[in-house]
Amino acid sequence: MSETPSALTLLRAALGDRVDTRPSSLNAARADKSGHAAAGTPLAVVHARSVADVQETMRIATATATPVVTRGAGTGLAGGANTGGGEIALSVRALDAVLEVRPDDLIAVVEPGILNGDLNAMLAEHGLWWAPDPASRAISTVGGNIATGAGGLLCAKYGVVRDAVLGIDLVLADGRLLSLGHRTVKGVTGLDLTSLVIGSEGLLGVIVGATLKLRRVVPGEVCTITATFSDVRAAATASAAVTASGVQPAIMELMDAASLTAVHSLLGLAVPVPGTAQLTLQTDGPAAAAEAAAIDRVLTAAGGTVIRTDDRDEGEALLAIRRSMHPAMETLGTALIEDVAVPRSALPAMFDEIARVEREHELVIPTVAHAGDGNLHPNFVFDAEPDADGVVEVPPHIWDAADDLFHAALRLGGTLTGEHGVGVLKRRWLADELGDDQWELQRQIARVFDPQGILNPGKVFSA
Amino acid sequence: MSETPSALTLLRAALGDRVDTRPSSLNAARADKSGHAAAGTPLAVVHARSVADVQETMRIATATATPVVTRGAGTGLAGGANTGGGEIALSVRALDAVLEVRPDDLIAVVEPGILNGDLNAMLAEHGLWWAPDPASRAISTVGGNIATGAGGLLCAKYGVVRDAVLGIDLVLADGRLLSLGHRTVKGVTGLDLTSLVIGSEGLLGVIVGATLKLRRVVPGEVCTITATFSDVRAAATASAAVTASGVQPAIMELMDAASLTAVHSLLGLAVPVPGTAQLTLQTDGPAAAAEAAAIDRVLTAAGGTVIRTDDRDEGEALLAIRRSMHPAMETLGTALIEDVAVPRSALPAMFDEIARVEREHELVIPTVAHAGDGNLHPNFVFDAEPDADGVVEVPPHIWDAADDLFHAALRLGGTLTGEHGVGVLKRRWLADELGDDQWELQRQIARVFDPQGILNPGKVFSA
Repeated sequence: MSETPSALTLLRAALGDRVDTRPSSLNAARADKSGHAAAGTPLAVVHARSVADVQETMRIATATATPVVTRGAGTGLAGGANTGGGEIALSVRALDAVLEVRPDDLIAVVEPGILNGDLNAMLAEHGLWWAPDPASRAISTVGGNIATGAGGLLCAKYGVVRDAVLGIDLVLADGRLLSLGHRTVKGVTGLDLTSLVIGSEGLLGVIVGATLKLRRVVPGEVCTITATFSDVRAAATASAAVTASGVQPAIMELMDAASLTAVHSLLGLAVPVPGTAQLTLQTDGPAAAAEAAAIDRVLTAAGGTVIRTDDRDEGEALLAIRRSMHPAMETLGTALIEDVAVPRSALPAMFDEIARVEREHELVIPTVAHAGDGNLHPNFVFDAEPDADGVVEVPPHIWDAADDLFHAALRLGGTLTGEHGVGVLKRRWLADELGDDQWELQRQIARVFDPQGILNPGKVFSA
Repeated sequence: MSETPSALTLLRAALGDRVDTRPSSLNAARADKSGHAAAGTPLAVVHARSVADVQETMRIATATATPVVTRGAGTGLAGGANTGGGEIALSVRALDAVLEVRPDDLIAVVEPGILNGDLNAMLAEHGLWWAPDPASRAISTVGGNIATGAGGLLCAKYGVVRDAVLGIDLVLADGRLLSLGHRTVKGVTGLDLTSLVIGSEGLLGVIVGATLKLRRVVPGEVCTITATFSDVRAAATASAAVTASGVQPAIMELMDAASLTAVHSLLGLAVPVPGTAQLTLQTDGPAAAAEAAAIDRVLTAAGGTVIRTDDRDEGEALLAIRRSMHPAMETLGTALIEDVAVPRSALPAMFDEIARVEREHELVIPTVAHAGDGNLHPNFVFDAEPDADGVVEVPPHIWDAADDLFHAALRLGGTLTGEHGVGVLKRRWLADELGDDQWELQRQIARVFDPQGILNPGKVFSA
C-alpha cells in the first residue's frame, strides 16, 4: 500500500532550500501589522525565487488540496496575509526585480516583491513616479499594494492603485500563468480582469508581475499649510470647504485632538490647547503658490489659524507630525486601526458619529483622516497581552464599538474599508455592505479562479 | 394540454405598450454604427421606462430562455448592440434621468440612457464635467460609454471611463438588482465588480444606474496647436517626442495624409501637399500657455510647421478638421473603423506596419490616432451594397488586411481594441490576445452572472 506524499515532502523535493520550516519563520508568517495572528502553525514558508517556483508551489498545493496564503512584506492591517495551521505561506518578497522602465511610454514592469519606496527611488532617477503612496510605502511591497488596492495621502489628486496598474501576471491556483491587461494606456479587449485582481486580497491567484502606469515627477514648488481649529468638527467642515472651493490640494490630512496630543507628546512638542484639531495640506505643480493662497483664505474664513510655507524642508517638518501617527498610537497601547470612508461632504457628520461612539462606548478613538478623499482611520486603542500562541485578540467591547462605527459609515453612504482591505478583521461586516446577493456572486467569481478554494481560505468572504 | 406562453406574450402582458414590434423598430435594432447588422428579425424592442421594467423583462427572458441585447443609442462601432432573430432588444434609452449632482462630493448619479453630451451640458451649469469624451459624445449614452469602456480625445490627460465610474446598478440575467461599488473616492470592500462591468459589453447584466466621478471644469485658457509634417512617420515621431518631453497636452490627435486630404475635400479647404500629415494639440489649465510654447519648440525641432493660438474659437476651428473625420470617411465609401492601441513609443512603428499592410493588400487605409495614448483608428474603406436583409458584409479581402494589422499591433505590445470593444467584429481575434486559458476563464466569469447565457449571446466570446 503506497502512501500519497505530503505537500511538505513534495515541496521539499521540488524546491529544496526555498522551503523554510524554521519555527521563527513559521511563527512570523502567522501575523501581519494588524495586531492579529492566525491560529496554529503554518506548514512551511516557501521563499519563491522565480515565477516557476510560484507555479510549482501552486501545482503541489492543488494536487494535495493544501491552502496557500501569498505574502509580501507582511505589512497588511486586516490580517489578509496571516497564515494559519496547515497552510503554506508563499512569500514573493524575493521576487523584487524591476524588469523594465520605459520613460517614453510611462510604464514600468516589476516583480511583486519590490518595496514601493525602493521602486520610487529607482524611478526618481528617470524623473518618474508611481503615484500610490500608502503610509507604509517604505516597508510595503508593490504586490501587496496591488493585492489590497492600497491608497495613501496623495490619492485625491493622483489616484489609487486601481488607477495606476495596466496589467498583472497572475498564477492561478492550479499553477497556470495568465497575463492580464495590457501595456497600452487604453485597452478594452474582453473583461477587465486586471481591475478585478486589484484589491482581491490573494483570493484569485498569486500576483507575480505588474505593468505599472507611471507619472512624471511634478515640476514646480510644493507649498505646505497647517491650520488649527478649536475642535474636530470645525476642521472637518473646513476641509469640506476646501474641496467645495474647487482647489485640489495634493495632500489634505486631518488629525483630531487625541491624535495631535499623542503625536506632540511623542515628538516632545508643546501640549496643544485641549480640543485642538489640525489640517495639514500640500499643493504642488505650476499653480502651487496660487492654490496655497486660495486654501489659506478658505481655512482662515473657516476659523482656522494658518501657517503656510513654500520651503520644502519646513513643509516636511509640518507633515512629519501627521506621519508620526502610527508610532504615537503604539505608545498608547494596542491599536485596532480602522479604515472607513465616506463621501467628502459627510466628513463632519462622520466625526459627530465617532464622538457619539466614544461617548456611548466610553472609549477614546484617536482619528486621522485623508480628508481630501473622505477616508478616516479611527484608532481603537486597548490594553492587551498576547496569549500563549502570541495571538492578540481584540476585546469584544472594542468590536462592539467598531461595529457601531461601521454601520454609521454605511448609513452616511460610506464603505467599510477605503484602503486596508477586508482580510479577516472585517469579513463579518462584508455582507452588510455588499448585500447577500452580491456577496454570493463575488464568492462564485472567486471559485472560477480557484475551484478548490485553496487560495487564502477564510479571508474576505468567510464569516 | 396547456401551452407555455411565449416570451412575447408574457412581455406584452407585463409591459403593454413598452413592447414594440413595429417592423421599422425591429429592423433598426439589428444594427449599430459599425456598418454591420445582425441576421434575422428581433422578437421585440422593449422600451424600458423604469428599473422595474428592466427587471421584469429579464425575469421573463430567464423564464423563457430568451436572449436579450441591451441597447442605448445604438452608436457602437463593433456590433455589440446588434439584435438578431428571436432576441429581445432591451432599450434603456428612455431611462435618462440625472438623479443627483453633488458638487461638494464631485459625484453624479445618473440613469444609463442620458446622452454624454446632455449630461455634460447639465454639469457645466455647476462648473462640473464628466471627463470621458468619445467622439460620439453628442449621440452616445453614458450607459453605452460604460458598457464599452469608452475612451476619447482627452484620455491621456483626463482618463477613460474606467477612471470615472465609482458605482454601477446592475440588473442580472434573472432580474435581481445589484448595487456595485460605492459613493466614496476610495473603497476596497470585496472584489471590484464595478470595474469588471465597465467594458463588459452587455454580457454581465443590464446597467440601470451609475455613480460617476466628476471633475471641476478646468480653469484658465486653452491653447491649440497644429503642426504639419512631410509624412506620417515624421508626425508620429514628433508626437512621441512630445510625450517623452514630459509636457502633457489635453488633446494630441494625428491625421495621416489620406485622412487629411479627405477632410479638406469635405470641408472645401485647400488640397494639402501630397503626403502631408498633421498633429492637432490642445493644452489647458494654469500652465496652458507655457506648455503650448514648450510643445511648439518640440514640434518645430521635429520638423513640423506649427500654428499656435490661444483663441478658443480659432482653436475649435482647427480641431474641427479632426472632428470631421467620420463624415469625411462616409464620402469615400463604407468604412470599417478599426481601433488598435500600441504603447506610445511604438506609434511610428505602427504607422510603418499600416503602410506595409496598404502595400501588400493594395488598399488605402486612412488613419487617425489619439497620439497621446497610442490609440489608432485605421479606416478600411470599401464599396458595398446592403444585401436583401440590409446587412452590409465586410468583404473577405478587407478582413484579411485587418487580420494582418491586428497581429502587427499585438506584436508591438498592443491591443485589438482601445475603446470600441470586441462586439461581433473582433471576437475571432479575442483569444489571440487573451490566450486560450484567459479566454476560457473570462467566459466562465460571464456565466456566473448569466448561467443560461441569455445576455448578448454570440458577442465577444463566441467565434
